[in-house]
Formats: sequence, structure tokens, C-alpha cells
Amino acid sequence: MTQRPAGEIAVIFVSTVTGADSDGYAVAAAAMGALAETQPGYRGIDSARGVDGLGITVSYWADEAAAVAWRKNADHAAIRERGRGVWYESYSLHVAEIARSYDWRKA
Amino acid sequence: MTQRPAGEIAVIFVSTVTGADSDGYAVAAAAMGALAETQPGYRGIDSARGVDGLGITVSYWADEAAAVAWRKNADHAAIRERGRGVWYESYSLHVAEIARSYDWRKA
Repeated sequence: MTQRPAGEIAVIFVSTVTGADSDGYAVAAAAMGALAETQPGYRGIDSARGVDGLGITVSYWADEAAAVAWRKNADHAAIRERGRGVWYESYSLHVAEIARSYDWRKA
Repeated sequence: MTQRPAGEIAVIFVSTVTGADSDGYAVAAAAMGALAETQPGYRGIDSARGVDGLGITVSYWADEAAAVAWRKNADHAAIRERGRGVWYESYSLHVAEIARSYDWRKA
């Protein structure tokens, strides 16, 4: 969680889960986070899931090409298929270019 | 949670809370959500806070002018000041323009 440079790409993933195989989902989510960190152009991630089951993960990428390469990553694609089959009830995904950014921390 | 048109503005607010006055925070958060819905150019909101205290709220706006007007709204500004004083440990805020968007729902 930090200020981001203008021009970075934010990939906003909003999802609801079925509740099926929640242990498997937790393992896969951690593995995907670790894999994302190794990708060219990866800049960071923020993730939260509330008790109502709605989750938001925002990953940050240096540019469009980096975000698209992550989408096409084979391991990522395989886990996405499993997500559709088992873990996710629904999701939406928005790819957006950061225009400006701020941060604040209690002194 | 739905597909968004290209050109909409996503305001990504990532925060950690102090834990102080959590009841007051919940009331204020609900009031701000209700107020946002009445603003010109408001298009929607997604929000999640995990048990670790990290929260992500994404609000969607028709255009830059609508997002800026919401930032300048007097009630919103007042509650933001209270947030800095009491509820928030830290936050970051990214304003981003949506380039493309998808959604998926289990059949």
C-alpha cells in the first residue's frame, strides 16, 4: 500500500466465492501472489476479503504489456480455470491506468 | 460488481484502521456510501475489509469531473478529516481510468 506513479496499470479484481474448497483456494491465492511477484513489470498488490465473501485484489503493473503478459501466464491461466470451476461464484475485472495517486500515514 | 465501460474513473482507496471508535467508523462508512450514491456521475462501489484490518474500496465515476466533485464534497471532506484524526492508520488512493473490463458469473 503506497503511492503509485502515474501511468502504472491497476488490475482490479472483484470476486465472490462459493465457499467450496476454501483451503485449496487459500493455497492457490498465496501461490498466485508469489508467482505474480516474479513477473516482469510487477509493482505490487493489495488484497482484502470481507466476512460477507466479497474480495478485492488490486495488482499494479509497470505498463499494459506487463499486465497482459501476466494474464497470459500459463500457470495463472490454469489456476483461473480452476477458480471458475470451483472457487468463484462471480467476478469482475477492470484494467485501469493510474492518473494520480496519494498516500497518507498517521504521524 | 459488474463490467464497467471504458473511460469510467475508478477511485481505489486502500486503508488500514487504528481500531479506535470502530462503531463510529462503521456508521460513517455507511453514511458516506449513501451520500456517494446521490452524487452526479456516481456509477457504483465495491468494498471489502479483511480480518487483518486492510480495506479496499473502489468507487466508480462517470468521468474525472465527477470524481473530483466527490473529493471536494463538503460532507465528504469533513468525514475525511475525522478519518485522519481517529479511524485511519494509513491509506493510499489511486485515481485510474478504466481501459477495459470483464465480468463472469457461474452459469
